[in-house]
Amino acid sequence: MPTLKVNQADCSCCGECAATCPLRIIRLPDGNFPRFCDDGADRCIICGHCEAVCPSGAITVEDPRLDPTSYPDPQPPIPKEQFARHLRMRRSIRRFSPEPVERETLQELLELMRYAPTGMNCQEVQWLVIYDTAELRRLSGLVVDWMRHVADQAPPGGLKINFEGMIKSWEKGNDPISRKAPHLVLTHARQDLSLGRVDGLIALSYLDLAAPAYGIGSCWAGYFQYACEGWQPLRDALGLPEGDQPIYAMLLGRPAVRYQRPPKRNFANVSWR
Amino acid sequence: MPTLKVNQADCSCCGECAATCPLRIIRLPDGNFPRFCDDGADRCIICGHCEAVCPSGAITVEDPRLDPTSYPDPQPPIPKEQFARHLRMRRSIRRFSPEPVERETLQELLELMRYAPTGMNCQEVQWLVIYDTAELRRLSGLVVDWMRHVADQAPPGGLKINFEGMIKSWEKGNDPISRKAPHLVLTHARQDLSLGRVDGLIALSYLDLAAPAYGIGSCWAGYFQYACEGWQPLRDALGLPEGDQPIYAMLLGRPAVRYQRPPKRNFANVSWR
Repeated sequence: MPTLKVNQADCSCCGECAATCPLRIIRLPDGNFPRFCDDGADRCIICGHCEAVCPSGAITVEDPRLDPTSYPDPQPPIPKEQFARHLRMRRSIRRFSPEPVERETLQELLELMRYAPTGMNCQEVQWLVIYDTAELRRLSGLVVDWMRHVADQAPPGGLKINFEGMIKSWEKGNDPISRKAPHLVLTHARQDLSLGRVDGLIALSYLDLAAPAYGIGSCWAGYFQYACEGWQPLRDALGLPEGDQPIYAMLLGRPAVRYQRPPKRNFANVSWR
Repeated sequence: MPTLKVNQADCSCCGECAATCPLRIIRLPDGNFPRFCDDGADRCIICGHCEAVCPSGAITVEDPRLDPTSYPDPQPPIPKEQFARHLRMRRSIRRFSPEPVERETLQELLELMRYAPTGMNCQEVQWLVIYDTAELRRLSGLVVDWMRHVADQAPPGGLKINFEGMIKSWEKGNDPISRKAPHLVLTHARQDLSLGRVDGLIALSYLDLAAPAYGIGSCWAGYFQYACEGWQPLRDALGLPEGDQPIYAMLLGRPAVRYQRPPKRNFANVSWR
């Protein structure tokens, strides 16, 4: 259960912590120092907003689950032109350098993903990294097996996607499944967690946008994901914890392609009220 | 149907366009200039990778659906330390300034969201902006009606979330639904689009990360979303196109709170293979 520590020498009783707490479980009775209300510690979701907002750094949330690492004070935000360019220039990468990305870099990126928002700050998103490239090829072969199974079951002309072509391409030594990427990450969460799927997709979207700043390319691995959902041999090979659902898969590696400019896009589809 | 235009004076026949095309529908027969294969124009998903990758800018994809706006050449990428700080410092905002954000700023942000990846580049994510703050309050009232309905139907003690407390808080003039944010955006897409939900969540995640660079705060509006999914009076009031599904809702506005440092987070949950 979390503890709310207040350094009384630094606390000005300004009330920012109480005003910002999403659950409104912090009180400043009669201008006294902040503290949890009666059932506050039970209800606290350890989001850390109180600690993050305190103008004088007087508040600390302590809990054994928390990584004690802290980070330096704010720098100026990224200017919007620079951020806009980053978003426009991010591309789904399908041509990768075969060299592995250092494990430390991937670890650093995944630790950053803990800052992606999760429903009620449950932080239940888990990551499976298929770091070994040969293992990723083996798993991609299982995706091709799933495609063969689907193609065999489908009535003639009944496939919306050209699985036969992809199977042939795989058999010729190409890799239409994981595009010869060196690595794949998969988010997963407990099946009974109502927000797990949304949280896992948010975290992957954050990864997708952060990766280029680390020189890493990414691509949402749709076929891999579909196979995860429907093909028991692949699920068995992945060995997710009992009761977990695969949320989505993403390819990662150093890009072997350099984009010169953003592509054109359709007009935005926005209604205003 | 798209056209692939090649400025032959600039094209060096390097083959980058053909190698990068995700559908492999561009050919350079015998070192000749790039062109679509026989059914290429039919199959082209207008992702623009060929145009974006061309080292000499010789390739153009033309299609009436495309916004002809182009952007200046690449600048250096955002350094990873700066991006990491941006991710760590982004906070879900629940205290907003009541002043509206200029419509132009929201439009600029939403146009940027067109660069978020979508399955097969279908770009089918649509946005509904509840720009009028009074209208957002009215819709939030419908969410409270939904909570009343759920609370009435539930057996005593059968609610996991304290809806009664939220209803009381609303009745006292607070706004636990949309936190008195001036605006709300909702992504929606056709119900029959298998990837619509994933695409909409990716686009909202991008918005969530881009907003702070524009001085805008955001918060995933879970209660609003749940009510959208289950409460016909709210769906009727939103008036989404027939056959569309609401994907997720997000609050937007200028933050009335300033965070000084990132909060602590749980340790990362990563398995390696």
